Amino acid sequence: MRQLKERNRCNRSVRHLKIQGKIWLKNLKSGLDQFRESQVRGTRTNFLHDGSFHEAVAPVLAVAQCFCLMPVSGIGAPTYRGLSFSRRSWRFWYSSLYLCSTSVDLAFSIRRVAHSVLDVRSVEPIVFHVSILIASWQFLNLAQLWPGLMRHWAAVERRLPGYSCCLQRARPARRLKLVAFVLLAVSLMEHLLSIISVVYYDFCPRRKDPVESYLHGTSAQLFEVFPYSNWLAWLGKIQNVLLTFGWSYMDIFLMMLGMGLSEMLARLNRSLEQQVRQPMPEAYWTWSRTLYRSIVELIREVDDAVSGIMLISFGSNLYFICLQLLKSINTMPSSAHAVYFYFSLLFLLSRSTAVLLFVSAINDQAREPLRLLRLVPLSGYHPEVFRFAAELASDQVALTGLKFFNVTRKLFLAMAGTVATYELVLIQFHEDKKSWDCSPSNHD
Amino acid sequence: MRQLKERNRCNRSVRHLKIQGKIWLKNLKSGLDQFRESQVRGTRTNFLHDGSFHEAVAPVLAVAQCFCLMPVSGIGAPTYRGLSFSRRSWRFWYSSLYLCSTSVDLAFSIRRVAHSVLDVRSVEPIVFHVSILIASWQFLNLAQLWPGLMRHWAAVERRLPGYSCCLQRARPARRLKLVAFVLLAVSLMEHLLSIISVVYYDFCPRRKDPVESYLHGTSAQLFEVFPYSNWLAWLGKIQNVLLTFGWSYMDIFLMMLGMGLSEMLARLNRSLEQQVRQPMPEAYWTWSRTLYRSIVELIREVDDAVSGIMLISFGSNLYFICLQLLKSINTMPSSAHAVYFYFSLLFLLSRSTAVLLFVSAINDQAREPLRLLRLVPLSGYHPEVFRFAAELASDQVALTGLKFFNVTRKLFLAMAGTVATYELVLIQFHEDKKSWDCSPSNHD
Amino acid sequence: MRQLKERNRCNRSVRHLKIQGKIWLKNLKSGLDQFRESQVRGTRTNFLHDGSFHEAVAPVLAVAQCFCLMPVSGIGAPTYRGLSFSRRSWRFWYSSLYLCSTSVDLAFSIRRVAHSVLDVRSVEPIVFHVSILIASWQFLNLAQLWPGLMRHWAAVERRLPGYSCCLQRARPARRLKLVAFVLLAVSLMEHLLSIISVVYYDFCPRRKDPVESYLHGTSAQLFEVFPYSNWLAWLGKIQNVLLTFGWSYMDIFLMMLGMGLSEMLARLNRSLEQQVRQPMPEAYWTWSRTLYRSIVELIREVDDAVSGIMLISFGSNLYFICLQLLKSINTMPSSAHAVYFYFSLLFLLSRSTAVLLFVSAINDQAREPLRLLRLVPLSGYHPEVFRFAAELASDQVALTGLKFFNVTRKLFLAMAGTVATYELVLIQFHEDKKSWDCSPSNHD
Amino acid sequence: MRQLKERNRCNRSVRHLKIQGKIWLKNLKSGLDQFRESQVRGTRTNFLHDGSFHEAVAPVLAVAQCFCLMPVSGIGAPTYRGLSFSRRSWRFWYSSLYLCSTSVDLAFSIRRVAHSVLDVRSVEPIVFHVSILIASWQFLNLAQLWPGLMRHWAAVERRLPGYSCCLQRARPARRLKLVAFVLLAVSLMEHLLSIISVVYYDFCPRRKDPVESYLHGTSAQLFEVFPYSNWLAWLGKIQNVLLTFGWSYMDIFLMMLGMGLSEMLARLNRSLEQQVRQPMPEAYWTWSRTLYRSIVELIREVDDAVSGIMLISFGSNLYFICLQLLKSINTMPSSAHAVYFYFSLLFLLSRSTAVLLFVSAINDQAREPLRLLRLVPLSGYHPEVFRFAAELASDQVALTGLKFFNVTRKLFLAMAGTVATYELVLIQFHEDKKSWDCSPSNHD
Repeated sequence: MRQLKERNRCNRSVRHLKIQGKIWLKNLKSGLDQFRESQVRGTRTNFLHDGSFHEAVAPVLAVAQCFCLMPVSGIGAPTYRGLSFSRRSWRFWYSSLYLCSTSVDLAFSIRRVAHSVLDVRSVEPIVFHVSILIASWQFLNLAQLWPGLMRHWAAVERRLPGYSCCLQRARPARRLKLVAFVLLAVSLMEHLLSIISVVYYDFCPRRKDPVESYLHGTSAQLFEVFPYSNWLAWLGKIQNVLLTFGWSYMDIFLMMLGMGLSEMLARLNRSLEQQVRQPMPEAYWTWSRTLYRSIVELIREVDDAVSGIMLISFGSNLYFICLQLLKSINTMPSSAHAVYFYFSLLFLLSRSTAVLLFVSAINDQAREPLRLLRLVPLSGYHPEVFRFAAELASDQVALTGLKFFNVTRKLFLAMAGTVATYELVLIQFHEDKKSWDCSPSNHD
Repeated sequence: MRQLKERNRCNRSVRHLKIQGKIWLKNLKSGLDQFRESQVRGTRTNFLHDGSFHEAVAPVLAVAQCFCLMPVSGIGAPTYRGLSFSRRSWRFWYSSLYLCSTSVDLAFSIRRVAHSVLDVRSVEPIVFHVSILIASWQFLNLAQLWPGLMRHWAAVERRLPGYSCCLQRARPARRLKLVAFVLLAVSLMEHLLSIISVVYYDFCPRRKDPVESYLHGTSAQLFEVFPYSNWLAWLGKIQNVLLTFGWSYMDIFLMMLGMGLSEMLARLNRSLEQQVRQPMPEAYWTWSRTLYRSIVELIREVDDAVSGIMLISFGSNLYFICLQLLKSINTMPSSAHAVYFYFSLLFLLSRSTAVLLFVSAINDQAREPLRLLRLVPLSGYHPEVFRFAAELASDQVALTGLKFFNVTRKLFLAMAGTVATYELVLIQFHEDKKSWDCSPSNHD
Repeated sequence: MRQLKERNRCNRSVRHLKIQGKIWLKNLKSGLDQFRESQVRGTRTNFLHDGSFHEAVAPVLAVAQCFCLMPVSGIGAPTYRGLSFSRRSWRFWYSSLYLCSTSVDLAFSIRRVAHSVLDVRSVEPIVFHVSILIASWQFLNLAQLWPGLMRHWAAVERRLPGYSCCLQRARPARRLKLVAFVLLAVSLMEHLLSIISVVYYDFCPRRKDPVESYLHGTSAQLFEVFPYSNWLAWLGKIQNVLLTFGWSYMDIFLMMLGMGLSEMLARLNRSLEQQVRQPMPEAYWTWSRTLYRSIVELIREVDDAVSGIMLISFGSNLYFICLQLLKSINTMPSSAHAVYFYFSLLFLLSRSTAVLLFVSAINDQAREPLRLLRLVPLSGYHPEVFRFAAELASDQVALTGLKFFNVTRKLFLAMAGTVATYELVLIQFHEDKKSWDCSPSNHD
Repeated sequence: MRQLKERNRCNRSVRHLKIQGKIWLKNLKSGLDQFRESQVRGTRTNFLHDGSFHEAVAPVLAVAQCFCLMPVSGIGAPTYRGLSFSRRSWRFWYSSLYLCSTSVDLAFSIRRVAHSVLDVRSVEPIVFHVSILIASWQFLNLAQLWPGLMRHWAAVERRLPGYSCCLQRARPARRLKLVAFVLLAVSLMEHLLSIISVVYYDFCPRRKDPVESYLHGTSAQLFEVFPYSNWLAWLGKIQNVLLTFGWSYMDIFLMMLGMGLSEMLARLNRSLEQQVRQPMPEAYWTWSRTLYRSIVELIREVDDAVSGIMLISFGSNLYFICLQLLKSINTMPSSAHAVYFYFSLLFLLSRSTAVLLFVSAINDQAREPLRLLRLVPLSGYHPEVFRFAAELASDQVALTGLKFFNVTRKLFLAMAGTVATYELVLIQFHEDKKSWDCSPSNHD
């Protein structure tokens, strides 16, 4: 009787899983189709390639939708006009489902942590879940704002000075896609390495089968409540994959925005660079000042929409770097673990640095006109130039972390200093006081 | 003979206590009456509702007077003209009495600490008493300045652009009262939770009766000198309640000021936002610049009056957060203690953050006009606009902590960083060096 | 034979000592005479009282000369013209002798430390000697610059708006002297307390006679090389007294300068405060701008002369505060020691804070005109006002510590934060992990 | 047979070594010749001495080429026109060879560290090798940019106001050479001291012969893989010498640049200082503003070329200071070691401070014109003066560390604070809790 019930429950779950799997596959396929389309169009029909940010970011957003983020429709549409957000689209429900399952997973994680000793390491899954949960919720909000944001973005883009040739026009988009897919690939590689290191060198197996043991370990918070079952384990693994990629995706998305916004400023700067040494009419300066102003207003609008994600991204990166450094004190159980561990730490450090550099490029580019205005000759120094210079001197243009900090290159030093201080204190605590004594091991 | 004397002393004390109690009840009643009046008038006679800060803050000040702070008369008067401060009013004497009793309590606390080991935890009662004592004294000074301050405030308020409808006019006042009473309610709840956790789960009872044991523990500094007596215990408890609410009230009061001042700037900004994109006559800019300047002068005057309270509020919040984090390392004796502890920590963190955000809103709103002035078109860019922009670019408008620090959003990061560093060092010290070893507890 | 030699040596030393003592007494007498004269003149002949800084600072400099600092002649002269510095004056040789004897004392201290374990406490005498030595040398240099500096100072003072009455004119000088002599008196009291606590409660006597034991302890670095002798002990004690007062004097001198310079700015501000709300002719603004500029140039000149002393003062105060906090962890051997220790710590903290506040008052006063210029009405807003405001907005006027840091109120927070962090780490290390356990000691 | 092979291999190596040695000697000779020439010309033919930076820096670059850095040709040429960089010159190949051998050495060092316990000390050789490797690579890049940079530099130099006499003209060059050669000499002395302390007081000899034992220790990473052989040991020693001097040279080179750039600004400032108090025609201000601007543009160009070296220099100095402080806790095995250790620490601290001060002098000199412009009288206050002042007020002119931080005097405080904090934490950990107890050792 009990067996029958269990089998029934199991069957139902399997059916459920199959349906979910199909939805996921369909989504993945449509995402890839969209991506392939945009790619094909991009290379074959170059005359159609309008160099807009909307077009460039489409495949990156398609990937996001595979991982249940950014449920906005029409990302593959030729112009921003095709974008729309609806509470009734399947993408919205799909994202909401993801939010719910993450919440449930979080609840199990909290339950698990509450039963163990509370310290900086054991809260890791909670920090991980909470940061992804808030970020996902922020992405849901962002999806709602995205069509309006892209409309504003396109309006500013139209006012920018044109590219001289179509090759130059395609470059920012290509660079953006390259960065995104390299990061996604490395992220995938890191996840595979983590699986390999755990499956093949499992030093405290929980079950006989190494795959089962791995799956058990991945969703340990579930199997403290439920008995082990393969379908639940796979569901947990899928959830875990979604979370991991969601976490990496945050950073990738911010880099995309950073590249898009700084490219706009760079286009303005390239135009200024050419004109600045000769006396220009006042109208030119009015044009460049208002153009600069409209880019700054766009940056402010984008910042209002993503500053929450920014705070979570920087905060969680800082937490996980400190945590990895803390773990680095321990000796590794096997060289597979060591390889995975240092690869993972390096990836984390590079990704964090990359986010900071790409996003702070906005600030660098926004300060550049100030330098150029210094070169305006006396005969072309109109009151408009003076106004432009005075405004530039007192503005601080940058994306922010919930307005608490500006993302500039100076932030790097502050973060590096924090990590270095932590590392020093850490090492100090674990220092085994060896000193000037003679170690005969390397005599021959 | 000795018994008789003791009984006499006891009788006198009881009589004293009764009188004190009556005064306190009368005060509470009058405060509540004032509050009820102002509420009734606010909802029934909307045409009378003038949206002034004086009116909005009245019930919050009435609550303060229940807890012996801000002994200014006429807070329930229809206009600021009714406000007065007199050294001969009962409110003043009542506040002075409170100051004296707090000083005496402080003396007993110091005596107790001096007889124990001196460390960061044992000085807690001293820090608590001293910060409240100084704050109460500052409130007494502030009461003296309050009528003048409100006159200045009303003068500035009259110059502000009007609200479009009376609903909009009532909103800031409603928001202010809501925030204040939610905080007071949560503060009350936290105190009750603390009583419950100690009374019902007292793990080291000092007396047989749990209530007596609780009262004994609350005023332990007294009962090291005097033998236990119920009336003294209840007096101590009243003092303790007054102190606890006084401590919370500091933060609430600062939030009120922050909301009032930033609302004034927001009203100016709303007006600018509407006019800024079209060419306005120079007189408009003179008007807005002088209005902005008079708000800034008001902020400076308020800052001179409350910057001491600000310093104490921020300092004591930071100290108590660090202390609670230090305590969080210990295991809790019961789950009632755990619930109380985490509720209390969360309340403390939220309250501190709320003070910072509400007060730093002044700085946010004061920087907003600078952004708006960037949008003034060339045809409307009068010298007055330039002067306004230049002044805005070099001013730093914010409430301060005794001029030592400005309360801006950047401060949040500095405080969060300090707390996080402390927490990291703390955890590092108590880290029990568990690592990659296999914990078999969660195998099935 | 050996005895004879020793006696000879002893005699010679005694003679030497007597001569030295006479010089010292003569110097003290002349200093006191100067002081008495300046005092008498100050109270009796008020019409002569010209309110100049030269006159106000004279008695403070006279005290400095008693302690072998600032060997400038003519400090008691009626005007700055009487000041002179000569390499051939007895004051110069006296100061040089002091520098030499301090160097010798330092050498003995280094010798002593090199023979003990090197840690943060044992280097205390070295830090103490080195900081006084450098400061004395800086004072010697300053004496050379002093006549020129006072000439410049008097030139600026003559241009300042006059005082309305002679009472007001005398006030800054009186305030200056009051602060200086209160601090000197407390410093003396602290030294006496230190003697009392060591002499009467000596818990590890090195010799039988308590006074001898005290003197031995004071100059322990000498008696590791030479056998104990009373005259050497007394010489060492005199050196010790000179060092201790020299150390306090650094801070007092910096406060005097801070008060003098900020008073000049305050006089300008009082004038501006009266005129700023009405439209003034352009010449008024030229006058005030150039006056402000000449005060700033004077501040810069003073800063070039004293920034070294400033760095040493702030650095040594920070070091000694940290050291005292480190010592505060230990239990005191007697309550006399405890009283002395907490008095000394409190004195150190107050003195450091006072230096910072008095010196940073320069920065506060220098920023004040910027606020006042905001109030200039449109009709009086000449280009000169704009220039004045623009210059004020970008200037940072303050005394500095060797140009490495500006002494402003913000510095206080940085220093307090450093001390608090150190204290927290300290307490954390010595925390004896007591927690929620029941301490039955205070049951009745 | 095996012996024969070994002998063959050995012979080949010896031949190789001889050829290498000849190349090195030839290079050294040519470098010294160049140096001698430039010196002779400088003193004998003063009328030829044109006071250019190219000429002044020539001997310093010649020394660099002895240590395989900066492979640019024509540094001894009379003007910048003789400079060239070619991939086919022997200097380039020589530098490349050095890069390769350093890489190989790094690989051996990593191999060695990977086999030992990983902590802050054991990574020392890796940090050392990696920082020199990157710096050498940066110097290679810089060599490529050097001819263009010097052309720009000379163009700016020609525009500067002339020196009044030829003695004054020669002074900056002399000062530059003096600083460079004093530092090189002290660096050599430090290296010799290190050899002496190890060779003569070797407390854990690895081989019988003290020299062999020293050489073995110097290249321990090699002799873990290969058996000991004298020629390999000497090769390793040469590599070690090149690395050590390369490391010192980084700092010296940055000081040279700092002196050169700040001297240019100082020349402009001296001209301004003379003219600023009298009303000058507008053309004068246009001239000085554009001159200032061209110096700033040159500084920016230099910064783009050397900011990488700057980051490595500051980073590695900070790391090695912390490491030396960590080592200072240990007791020294002999007084020779102690002398070497404290000399080395002092040298490191002075060198780091010197780099910071010389490089930050650029910032100091660049801020100086702002002060001077304040003194321009009303009659000479042209719009150009206002523009100049406004630009100065908002510019931050300084060399940077990869744009992450500006090298200004304020940086010193930040670095000193970091080092002091580290030192305090360090001491705290090793504090042996001695306190008020009586130490009878110094009783007589």
